[in-house]
Amino acid sequence: MAKEKKAPKPKAQTPKGFRDYFGTEVTERAEMLAQIAGVYHRYGFDALESSAVETVEALGKFLPDVDRPNEGVFAWQEDEDGDKGDWLALRYDLTAPLARVYAQHRNDLPLPYRRYAMGPVWRNEKPGPGRFRQFYQCDADTVGSGSVAADAEICAMLADTLEVVGIPRGDYIVRVNNRKVLNGVLEAMGLNDDSQRDAVLRTIDKFDKVGEAGVRELLGKGRLDASGAYIDGVGLGEAQAEPVIAFLTSKGETAAQTIENLKAAVGDSTIGADGVAELEQIADLLAAGGYGPDRIVIDPSVVRGLGYYTGPVFEAELTFEILDEKGRKRQFGSVAGGGRYDDLVKRFTGQPVPATGVSIGVDRLLAALREKGRIGSQSAGPVVVTVMDRDRMGDYQAMVAELRSAGIRAEVYLGNPKNFGNQLKYADKRNSPVAVIEGGDEKANGVVQIKDLILGAKIAESASLEEWQDRPNQFEVPRDQLVTKVREILESYS
Amino acid sequence: MAKEKKAPKPKAQTPKGFRDYFGTEVTERAEMLAQIAGVYHRYGFDALESSAVETVEALGKFLPDVDRPNEGVFAWQEDEDGDKGDWLALRYDLTAPLARVYAQHRNDLPLPYRRYAMGPVWRNEKPGPGRFRQFYQCDADTVGSGSVAADAEICAMLADTLEVVGIPRGDYIVRVNNRKVLNGVLEAMGLNDDSQRDAVLRTIDKFDKVGEAGVRELLGKGRLDASGAYIDGVGLGEAQAEPVIAFLTSKGETAAQTIENLKAAVGDSTIGADGVAELEQIADLLAAGGYGPDRIVIDPSVVRGLGYYTGPVFEAELTFEILDEKGRKRQFGSVAGGGRYDDLVKRFTGQPVPATGVSIGVDRLLAALREKGRIGSQSAGPVVVTVMDRDRMGDYQAMVAELRSAGIRAEVYLGNPKNFGNQLKYADKRNSPVAVIEGGDEKANGVVQIKDLILGAKIAESASLEEWQDRPNQFEVPRDQLVTKVREILESYS
Repeated sequence: MAKEKKAPKPKAQTPKGFRDYFGTEVTERAEMLAQIAGVYHRYGFDALESSAVETVEALGKFLPDVDRPNEGVFAWQEDEDGDKGDWLALRYDLTAPLARVYAQHRNDLPLPYRRYAMGPVWRNEKPGPGRFRQFYQCDADTVGSGSVAADAEICAMLADTLEVVGIPRGDYIVRVNNRKVLNGVLEAMGLNDDSQRDAVLRTIDKFDKVGEAGVRELLGKGRLDASGAYIDGVGLGEAQAEPVIAFLTSKGETAAQTIENLKAAVGDSTIGADGVAELEQIADLLAAGGYGPDRIVIDPSVVRGLGYYTGPVFEAELTFEILDEKGRKRQFGSVAGGGRYDDLVKRFTGQPVPATGVSIGVDRLLAALREKGRIGSQSAGPVVVTVMDRDRMGDYQAMVAELRSAGIRAEVYLGNPKNFGNQLKYADKRNSPVAVIEGGDEKANGVVQIKDLILGAKIAESASLEEWQDRPNQFEVPRDQLVTKVREILESYS
Repeated sequence: MAKEKKAPKPKAQTPKGFRDYFGTEVTERAEMLAQIAGVYHRYGFDALESSAVETVEALGKFLPDVDRPNEGVFAWQEDEDGDKGDWLALRYDLTAPLARVYAQHRNDLPLPYRRYAMGPVWRNEKPGPGRFRQFYQCDADTVGSGSVAADAEICAMLADTLEVVGIPRGDYIVRVNNRKVLNGVLEAMGLNDDSQRDAVLRTIDKFDKVGEAGVRELLGKGRLDASGAYIDGVGLGEAQAEPVIAFLTSKGETAAQTIENLKAAVGDSTIGADGVAELEQIADLLAAGGYGPDRIVIDPSVVRGLGYYTGPVFEAELTFEILDEKGRKRQFGSVAGGGRYDDLVKRFTGQPVPATGVSIGVDRLLAALREKGRIGSQSAGPVVVTVMDRDRMGDYQAMVAELRSAGIRAEVYLGNPKNFGNQLKYADKRNSPVAVIEGGDEKANGVVQIKDLILGAKIAESASLEEWQDRPNQFEVPRDQLVTKVREILESYS
């Protein structure tokens, strides 16, 4: 068979790692973002929307001397009338753009500058199940204040925000630590070798899994894994390992106890003592604001990954249990995090500018609310006015115009009206509460038929249910009572 | 002087053609989008948010056989473990992604599918004054209905939307035309030469400027320009030019008159007659819905640029006058447009799928509301609690916590508190209505000072104004009346 040369049809497919969001997925996110913005605004933060596209130079993600840089961002080179121009990239978070915005506009902005921002960010990473390359963040940051009161405020605001979007007290905890304390611990251990410091930090991260005894082994000679493999240790002596152990086991019953334990763990380290003092101030400020340990705790086990944090770090975790893909119970985990980063603006200006902030993972928080059944119901579909006589489309349009004027979501069936069954199937697919029918006889008699589709569905589910028996699921009303009767039905289900 | 080798500081600058939006610029847009979404939802449209990134293949903007395509979109090539992958690009509108989404998900979507979408789009064009390469669109489309009732509905919805966001009736007009009518006119002229057809279309576009006599000249031998230059004509005879003239002058006092004139203009052309019949149906449906010519008119002068329209086209224009950059009065002009495009989904599926929709230029509409003074006021700043004693930060945090709990926007001054004047300058820059002061004496006496900054500004403006004379702009209240008194002041100005 001879092949016909023909332009192939394009594939109707999102790029790998991207997805589309439909209906309530979109509106529930918009509502949550509006709620979060409300809290941020009440705390005095101002909105900022920077461009989605930045120069690679401003993002600082990689140098433009590589031909096709691809390190975590989506990037391309400007073409200026045939000449190659700047490398541009999609933002990968909202913090790097804030540093650029602050440096660019600092003469016009208040000092300190409190700003919030929300929107998609893009990561050029290998997509995986549930891992997308475009997702939403919602950040609040205070630029230009070195006071730990700024950090404390962000923690309090984070707790308030979680409650406002629907996570009840008790189902979340904001945990606060300080990078300086960790640095103090490493100093107290007398570690100068970078690779040893890194090994110790990796071991700290395993504390949750292997516990105190496991960490002792890993800091020393090594440890036999659960799988039977032998994991080499860092090779420290017991005395040298002691500050890490003291640090990891420092969480006390109260903030005051934890602070005391941390003071011991950092020993003579000046930076460590600074860090502990800052945590103490944060704890005092939060207590003064009425934020008790049921909402915010000092917790030395928080180690935020990002290298740019320089002081207090914080994380919000949801503490209720969900079932993972294998049916095992586990805590929902982190939905927000942040901390103090005093060096990001300095890249641009040469002057140190202290800053602190938090980023909420909006999509994870939405997933949590869905888990809790707080959101995720199907949206109420529109009232569907069916088309019995295609020459009288004007009559049907007039009906929906009346319904909409009364604030009722309504539409005329716009498909091929020949098969009436298809119109009802459409109403079903749209999750419509009510269908309206006006054939020639009804028109002549000045009436319309109203079909209660919710009742219809209930009857179909359990025809014997007595409570529905005396209620007809279709009835006739005078045309001029259309809006009143439809509203009655809608209100009976609300 | 020896040069020191040092990494240069990155420039703190948005890429060319991009900008940042601050404060009310962000929140006013968000509010407008929410209002528009409310109308779209009431009309039965469902939200859709597709990914910002599409394959170039799906966008159909250019073929991937060019090394660095750059035709109007921002594009880059995927790098899959060193192998070159798909070309990806930022969406340049919301219609091309809709066609892809519909083709991809058509088995799960209702038919017809009414959807709305809002968000930024990106154009790789030369930036100019007021022309940005990222801007917002807000679209509504009905896919899968060939009925002109779908077009009429979009026009009605557009009129409703403009009124809801704050453009009063009389300040806008939705104008409707039909591509088929134009094609009918060209057919009636017996034009088969594509270059002649294009020349005629370009001439039609000049009707607004040169009027009927000018168009006659341009269709014939040519015309002496206002600048003195001679513009060559299309070279048609007077009889052959007649349908265009009839078409351009067809707008009558009523829709019925316009329709009659158009019938004459298209002569024997079948497609022309189809187009006129469709316009007639649209006019009837709009009249039935109560949308009179004060809101929506049939207007043959509407020629939307995009090649993909196949039937009805529409445009919303704001009719009030503004002053242009040279101080001359002109109408504000177009803020939304759309039409029927029956071939976009077919690219993917091979099956024709009728569709129609509208796109609102959100940023232009916001600019119009700013012109009218409807929006654009500075946002109310937060109450600023000043810091007189930095060791009592907890006391100040407790005050803002109380104010926020009462729903009042409030913040503690987080800059260096040493210079009190700077704190008041900050409050001024933040547009704060009230500053709160609690020094050591106030603390000891259980009181706080409340400074009414709005009153202060009024007195500074016109010290002699009697109405303010008996109102002190700073006074002392018991600490436990802080919230009550602050609220009283805020309410007195609201």
